[in-house]
Amino acid sequence: MKVAFIVYDGMTTLDFLGVYDPLTRLKTMGFIADFQWDVCALNEPVVDSSGLRILPSRVGGSLEDYDLVIVPGGFASRDLQRDTAFIEWLRTAGRRTQVVSVCSGALLLGAAGYLQGKPATTHRSSFDDLRQYCAAVVDERIVDAGEVITARGVTSSIDLGLYLVEKLAGAEVKERIRWQMDYQPEDSAPTARR
Amino acid sequence: MKVAFIVYDGMTTLDFLGVYDPLTRLKTMGFIADFQWDVCALNEPVVDSSGLRILPSRVGGSLEDYDLVIVPGGFASRDLQRDTAFIEWLRTAGRRTQVVSVCSGALLLGAAGYLQGKPATTHRSSFDDLRQYCAAVVDERIVDAGEVITARGVTSSIDLGLYLVEKLAGAEVKERIRWQMDYQPEDSAPTARR
Repeated sequence: MKVAFIVYDGMTTLDFLGVYDPLTRLKTMGFIADFQWDVCALNEPVVDSSGLRILPSRVGGSLEDYDLVIVPGGFASRDLQRDTAFIEWLRTAGRRTQVVSVCSGALLLGAAGYLQGKPATTHRSSFDDLRQYCAAVVDERIVDAGEVITARGVTSSIDLGLYLVEKLAGAEVKERIRWQMDYQPEDSAPTARR
Repeated sequence: MKVAFIVYDGMTTLDFLGVYDPLTRLKTMGFIADFQWDVCALNEPVVDSSGLRILPSRVGGSLEDYDLVIVPGGFASRDLQRDTAFIEWLRTAGRRTQVVSVCSGALLLGAAGYLQGKPATTHRSSFDDLRQYCAAVVDERIVDAGEVITARGVTSSIDLGLYLVEKLAGAEVKERIRWQMDYQPEDSAPTARR
């Protein structure tokens, strides 16, 4: 199992990290010994929408050998959907590669043709922009259309990550990772004790 | 307003990003024009607990000029609480600096003496380790003890970030940032549509 986490200048890093954290725990918490990943970019360092600098583990190259390719969103995606070099790079994913997006990363999957004829979601502020690329825009946290899975806004990346963990390793592993991440929607309302 | 986001080898990056994302939106979404921050480390690049490499914007130097210093957790914190150079660095925060931790970052604040006589929280798996440093371990997402605020496990960083946003800019700004982050605990249960 080999995952490509796509990163690019102007991305929202939490879109990437919300999936990266639970998925990489499959390895670091000892659930899947041969779980591998790369942080993939076309340049380095990558500078996110707030100026945070990240060093990818792989720059350029085809994405065809990855089982899973995950694309985050960010304000830069509005321009990047018309960036031929970037979109052609996304198209190098293999036929059996599961392609996944978070937030406005769906616009990039759309520009690469992955959403044709499929239901999909994105950040609520990008619903109108997404329509040109897909069969239907769906207002859900996660839309699983088989070869392509899309997640809604920024923090839905965490739900997506846990959803992928369950697909890859089952409900019990998902529950252990969810506990370790202290992800408890039911008690996460602001309840600061003074 | 100037924030120091502390990063270190072996940290859990989501602990850092969950606060970094909402707080930096105070600037990037145009709510506080002079909101500034550094990503501070004692070395570079920083390599997180899963191998992700991050470049700090500032290496070394005193923390005394920051209004807010935020310390993430991670497995490395268990050793780091006995690392004299690191703990002394945390102690350079100024008298008026608000000191904040996420997850096992509380052990580092504890080792630096910031939790003496105060209630605090940390990841549930570190409750026993935290007791030596504070007046009481509290099982809440966020514990606001005035000069020191601690958050529980990994994803409580997002709740902490939004809590700090509200303290700094009010409830309306918090609501706009929460919407932009699509952080909706009430609908974030896994409800993937197939």
